[in-house]
Parts: sequence; structure tokens; C-alpha cells
Amino acid sequence: MLKVPEHQVAGHKAKDGILGPLVDDSGLFYKPLQNSDTRGSTELSFYSSLSSNPNVPHSFFPAFHGTKTIAASDGSGLHPHLVLEDLLRAFAQPSVIDVKIGARTWHLGDSADYIEKCLKKDRETSTIPLGFRISGAKDALSAWEPSRKSLQSLSADAVLLVLKKFVSSDAHSDAPDCAFASEVYAVVLDRLLQLKAWFEVQTLYHFYSCSVLIVYEKNLNHRNEKGKGEILVKLVDFAHAVPANGAIDHNFLGGLCSFINFIKQILSGLHR
Amino acid sequence: MLKVPEHQVAGHKAKDGILGPLVDDSGLFYKPLQNSDTRGSTELSFYSSLSSNPNVPHSFFPAFHGTKTIAASDGSGLHPHLVLEDLLRAFAQPSVIDVKIGARTWHLGDSADYIEKCLKKDRETSTIPLGFRISGAKDALSAWEPSRKSLQSLSADAVLLVLKKFVSSDAHSDAPDCAFASEVYAVVLDRLLQLKAWFEVQTLYHFYSCSVLIVYEKNLNHRNEKGKGEILVKLVDFAHAVPANGAIDHNFLGGLCSFINFIKQILSGLHR
Repeated sequence: MLKVPEHQVAGHKAKDGILGPLVDDSGLFYKPLQNSDTRGSTELSFYSSLSSNPNVPHSFFPAFHGTKTIAASDGSGLHPHLVLEDLLRAFAQPSVIDVKIGARTWHLGDSADYIEKCLKKDRETSTIPLGFRISGAKDALSAWEPSRKSLQSLSADAVLLVLKKFVSSDAHSDAPDCAFASEVYAVVLDRLLQLKAWFEVQTLYHFYSCSVLIVYEKNLNHRNEKGKGEILVKLVDFAHAVPANGAIDHNFLGGLCSFINFIKQILSGLHR
Repeated sequence: MLKVPEHQVAGHKAKDGILGPLVDDSGLFYKPLQNSDTRGSTELSFYSSLSSNPNVPHSFFPAFHGTKTIAASDGSGLHPHLVLEDLLRAFAQPSVIDVKIGARTWHLGDSADYIEKCLKKDRETSTIPLGFRISGAKDALSAWEPSRKSLQSLSADAVLLVLKKFVSSDAHSDAPDCAFASEVYAVVLDRLLQLKAWFEVQTLYHFYSCSVLIVYEKNLNHRNEKGKGEILVKLVDFAHAVPANGAIDHNFLGGLCSFINFIKQILSGLHR
């Protein structure tokens, strides 16, 4: 039984006749291979190359299970899909945030039109000022899900507030209590520092328009169930992952360090 | 007695009627305050704010001695100049390299024309691919001084070759011996890592179009003279240094980490 993912916060959603990802009951996530441009093939090549490369911290990437042709969510008939791990499967009422990392979401191999479009959006959002933008956020328990548009263009102070709400008892409050901050962000920081250490040396890929996805379960009842207490930090979206050509991914690394600094600020604020 | 600096590798040179920097015999460097746009005033504000800020690693910046109105190098009469430390004063036959750090040399406050001009150059040079470009290099002892244009658009491999030549007995050789690499780049790496640690947390300034300047004396005879053995790593050019607005300078940090990775590659190659 394929269905629309319940807690997707960014990217195309498979509803109202739109082509989008689907999940099944066995823990798989089916992502349509876009065929209007090279994105689908880029992401497929990336996952294929990743799987066979031992010099990659695989724990940061969704598991890849090849491709499968299934009925598309938009009713257009059979369509090839990437088969990935459903990262949200183990969560009952997840808190999810998607942070698109990097001050530049395009690369020199992109078309002039695409670069112009991206550059415009990078300038209008927090991407250029902060080196990342929040693409989506949700707290299923508090039914908090700010509009994507409102999240993308935040100032440094406003990003800090959203990141505090994300780890607070009541995500709607403008005076967030940060009740889950020390538990959640300590793990997140640890994982992000591991990721940073890899980005400081890896010259395999450059990741444009790629996101860090953070997921945790706020409801203690759910967390006490087996396997549901995990705090996830994963990379997602590799439709613009390209070969590195001898340099580290300074664009992703810079943005990642900027995001890390926000997490550190919240953690250090807790001890004051 | 004011004269034209002998070993300047980047920026406007004060010759042939061009307005450029001058040095005197007492160790001061006079940089014209440009008045055609805001660059001069930006740099003056930057140095003024820097001087009074204790939370800055001052050893990375040239000492600032205010401003002085002197006869301009282009013969146009009296002109206000920044008075800075002459970083090359203690060197007899310096090896100098100027590396402009960052994948973006412009910021959102710049004019549309200026952004367009910078973006074009950033795309055509190694600035976007590598996160930095070599603006100039010179080895006074070997009389090696590649054209600036040839240095700006290098591939990763070509940058590595230039960085090896910079620390080799014969900088002209395409099979560089890296005779000075372990001594020079060990110090350089140590300094760059200190700089990186600051950039991971500082939210004071964003530095666009700013360079890391590396200087050392290759001639052992000169090095044995008092005070001439130093290996310098300094930041220069702050005409586009702007307030950080709550975020770290992810653009500079990313480019710096990319440059560091090249230095590390050379150092680790020495032990193979």
C-alpha cells in the first residue's frame, strides 16, 4: 500500500495531482525520478556512486535500494522512482526541520536560466546572508507548521527563535522554554561536528541545494517505545550533487559551520 | 622619503601615474583612501573599529596608525592615506603570495553593477570552484613572478603546483622540490588553523574580497639576520569588510578551509 508521507516538510508533495514521493508500510520511500531535466539522473548517479564508496560516512545518508517503476502519485501512470529508506518511519509524532545548506544553491554546470532563478532566490532568502535557509519545519505534537515561505527569509535572530521553538514544549510560544534543547541539540551538535569533520577533507562531491534533516520525537510516550527515541541528523536531496574536482565543498562547509554556530548559541544560552 | 613598494603582488601599483600605495623608511605603508566610492571609508571604518575591539586576533592584521594626507603617487596632489604597518619591511628578498579568500567577493549591500562585475569574475576565476583565487605571487630570490591573470583561474591541480613552486628552491621548475614546504607550510598551517578557529565563531565582520598574505624569506643569509626569519600570515584589504549581522562569515570560512586543505595536501605529500 503506497501512501503520501504524512510529515514531509519540504520538496514537492504528492497531492492534488502533483508528482511527489510515496511511502509504503515496509519502511521504503519512493522518490520520483524527474525526467524533465537532469535532476533525477544526477540523484540516481549520486546514490549509485555513494553506495559503492567506502570513504563516505554512510550513517548520514538514507539507505538506497535501487529504483522501481510504480504508479506515479499524479495519476500519470507508471514512473521510475528511487527507492530509499523512509527516514520518518520510526516516528509517531515527529518534530522535523529541513535546513538547506550553502550560500549558493547552483553550480557552474547549471543552465543560465537555472542559475538566475537560484541566485534570485538565494539573494531574497537567508541563503546568502546566513549560508543556509530553513526549507520547512513541523512539530506534529503541537501541530506547529509555519509556512515554508515564512521560514526561508529569516534574519539571524528570527532563525534563532525558530530553532528554539523547535525544541520547546509549546512550539507556538514566542517565549520558547527550550525544554528539549539540551537533550536534542547536544546530539545534533555532535552529529553536525562529525559531518563538518568530513566536509573539511572530502573532495568527492559538492552538494548544492542539499539539506540537513533533523527529526526527533517529542512525545515521551512514543519515545519510550522501542526504537523511537532516536534523534536523526541526515542529509537529503542530491539532485544537484556533482563531482568535487579536487576542492572541498567550501560552500556546504561554510553554511554548515554557520548553522552549527546557531545550535551552539542555543546550547550555551542554556547554561547562563 | 616615500617610495613605491618593491614587492607588491596584488592591488593597484603606484607607477605610471596610477594612484597606489607608498612606503617610507620607518616601516609605514600609505594606502590611498579611494574617494570615487565607499571603499576607502569602509576600510577606514573597519580599521578604526578593529583597533578598539579586544575580541579580535590582532596579530592577523597590519597595525593601524590613523590617516595622513600626503602627496599622491599619481601626481594629483595631496590625498588622504591610511597609515598602516609595512608588512614587507623586514624582508630583503621576500617570497610573497596573496590569496583572495571566499567564493563570493560581493555582498548584498553592493550596487547591482558592482555585483554583476564581481560575479562575472568569480565565475571566470577559481573563486567559485575552489573558494579562493591567487591574486599574485612572487619569489624575489628566483625572480619568479607569474602574471596575475595566469594565477587567478587555476584548476585545483594547477593551484597545488603554484603552492609547491612557492616553497621550492627553484620556483620556475615544473618539478618543484618543495625544499621549504615543511618549514614554511607547517607555520602557515598553524596560523591558518588559528584563523579558522576565530572565523568559526566571530560574528563581528564579514570580509569580502579580503586576502591572506603569506610572506617568508627564502635566502638563508637574509634569514639569519635579526628579525628576518619570520614567516608571516596576515589578512589584508578591508575595503569590503561589513558588519556580520549575527552570522559567522561562512563565505570566508569556507574558502579558508578549502585553502587549508591544499596546504595540508602538500604537507602530507612530503611524508609519503
